Amino acid sequence: MLGTVLHAPGDIRCDKVEDPTIQKPTDAVIKLSASCVCGSDLWPYRGLQPVKGPQHMGHEYCGVVVEVGSEVKTIRPGQFVVGSFVISDNTCPHCRNGFQSSCEHREFMTGAQAPYARIPLADGTLVATGTIPSDDLIPSLLAASDVLGTGWYAADAARVRPGCTAVVVGDGAVGLMGVLAAKQLGAERIIAMSRHKARQELALEYGATDIVTGRGDAGVAQMKELTAGVGADSVLECVGTQESMMQAINCARPGGSIGFVGVPHGVELDGQMLFFQQKNLLGGPAPVRRFLPHLIDLIMSRRINPGKVFDLEVPLADVAQGYKAMDQRSAIKTLLRM
Amino acid sequence: MLGTVLHAPGDIRCDKVEDPTIQKPTDAVIKLSASCVCGSDLWPYRGLQPVKGPQHMGHEYCGVVVEVGSEVKTIRPGQFVVGSFVISDNTCPHCRNGFQSSCEHREFMTGAQAPYARIPLADGTLVATGTIPSDDLIPSLLAASDVLGTGWYAADAARVRPGCTAVVVGDGAVGLMGVLAAKQLGAERIIAMSRHKARQELALEYGATDIVTGRGDAGVAQMKELTAGVGADSVLECVGTQESMMQAINCARPGGSIGFVGVPHGVELDGQMLFFQQKNLLGGPAPVRRFLPHLIDLIMSRRINPGKVFDLEVPLADVAQGYKAMDQRSAIKTLLRM
Repeated sequence: MLGTVLHAPGDIRCDKVEDPTIQKPTDAVIKLSASCVCGSDLWPYRGLQPVKGPQHMGHEYCGVVVEVGSEVKTIRPGQFVVGSFVISDNTCPHCRNGFQSSCEHREFMTGAQAPYARIPLADGTLVATGTIPSDDLIPSLLAASDVLGTGWYAADAARVRPGCTAVVVGDGAVGLMGVLAAKQLGAERIIAMSRHKARQELALEYGATDIVTGRGDAGVAQMKELTAGVGADSVLECVGTQESMMQAINCARPGGSIGFVGVPHGVELDGQMLFFQQKNLLGGPAPVRRFLPHLIDLIMSRRINPGKVFDLEVPLADVAQGYKAMDQRSAIKTLLRM
Repeated sequence: MLGTVLHAPGDIRCDKVEDPTIQKPTDAVIKLSASCVCGSDLWPYRGLQPVKGPQHMGHEYCGVVVEVGSEVKTIRPGQFVVGSFVISDNTCPHCRNGFQSSCEHREFMTGAQAPYARIPLADGTLVATGTIPSDDLIPSLLAASDVLGTGWYAADAARVRPGCTAVVVGDGAVGLMGVLAAKQLGAERIIAMSRHKARQELALEYGATDIVTGRGDAGVAQMKELTAGVGADSVLECVGTQESMMQAINCARPGGSIGFVGVPHGVELDGQMLFFQQKNLLGGPAPVRRFLPHLIDLIMSRRINPGKVFDLEVPLADVAQGYKAMDQRSAIKTLLRM
């Protein structure tokens, strides 16, 4: 089959790759209904993360099960499934504690920018929808696989509670999903930090009550003004740079919480600064599996529409165009049609 | 009057200092029943923190109110009071959120290793006991002012819950109070990291169920063995070095929580390490004021005996001996009698 392969920074192609097959008795093979490009795919694409040889890209997926291994018990061919970008057994102590992204048998999904994919630990990783969803729900279900689940985790880790004030640092797809999650979790005030008109509009549609356009200290000052100098109860950090991390920490009130989901690149935090800031910090790869049943339910009942975050659709063959648009920030997130 | 003055690293004396007086209408002056030496006093004593000129030391205190300013409304002369080592108004938004140690009018107490002390913002900072306590309760009430309140905050920040597994890194007075707090908050298993016999014994008396003697990676490995490789739900970090902080982080399970109360000295944390560790971090100067009413109640009803942490008592005149014993770790904590 044809799949997406990153050969070197900037060099992404739709190439011939091996057809996925059952390799372990706990595997499933699925036919993807759609796939997409993640903000984290841009790190190696931009050369900010090493590329050691050709990589079969893609970790966001949903689709129909075509085959399962002999030990797969709950997932069956013909089901429509959504899975996390982190493979997990969903039975180990960390999974039972709700941190499936630190599963003792964790693997990071790859090779999902393709028509078919092998999913290890299928019973633990995949969640089946009750019925086959209609086509217009595919983008939203695909979003649940990572970008929505990650934004949701940011809000959860930032302890968004009914009535609270939340700030979202980062107006990429994850940040916008963070706005949606904060709204669903009951935040009364949601301050989105963005200076791109199209993204501001989507943030407002997803539930943002205020937009702050400043960055760094200027952004913090604008945000503080909106909260009578107190700071936010919850801050969702959805970028991963030193500047964005400090912006997030400085936006929270003492005792407030920062959920950080932007993979940190070059971030160093001074212990004494963290001590005197006195703020909760929790980050990491999102345990999407924990949230999937609820997210699927919200999508299938059309209470949320995370699929709107895809503002560019290209056929898989044109994947290079999809990466380029996201790299240049002319697209928020690219959906790949099979 | 005579009070404790640090002139230079290692040079601590009982010197003549000014008698405290009401300087602002929100002040109170108290006659101390006892004072003590804090682990944090050892940082400047050891030259690990700059000493700019003579410092009147001491921030832990309890005693009888002798005078109040014209605006003090709830505190009255004759009352026995305990106060936090952090002065707070207890009315600002941060105080109302339970983070009095980040009060908008925060001051750090000083000058309490003396027979009398001025307490700013008396209404916000001080809590009166219902009755005058008997003499044998004085050490415990004094402990509530900082060391107990700080150990309690470590357990609170580490989210100790009934039935959980807690680890305490550090066997100083704060660590031992952390053991006591974890026990009171319902931890089922409390693993104390200590290699000093006397401290191990006090830890066991306060509720530790296991002792780990290894440090650094060896300590983490021993601790992991006790928890079937999973790690602890809650870790109380009560030291403040790079090694102890990493030990604490490595002891927690994914999704677990670290409450860090040892003032970090030379600690740097890598963002990507924190991300993939996926653990809650909350530290800071303890908001003792939040816990004081409950702690005073536990002490007055003799349900806890934190005063046992004082294993050396000297008259104020011999304060140098008290510092030396703690510096050399021959005493856990020194009580100063007036």
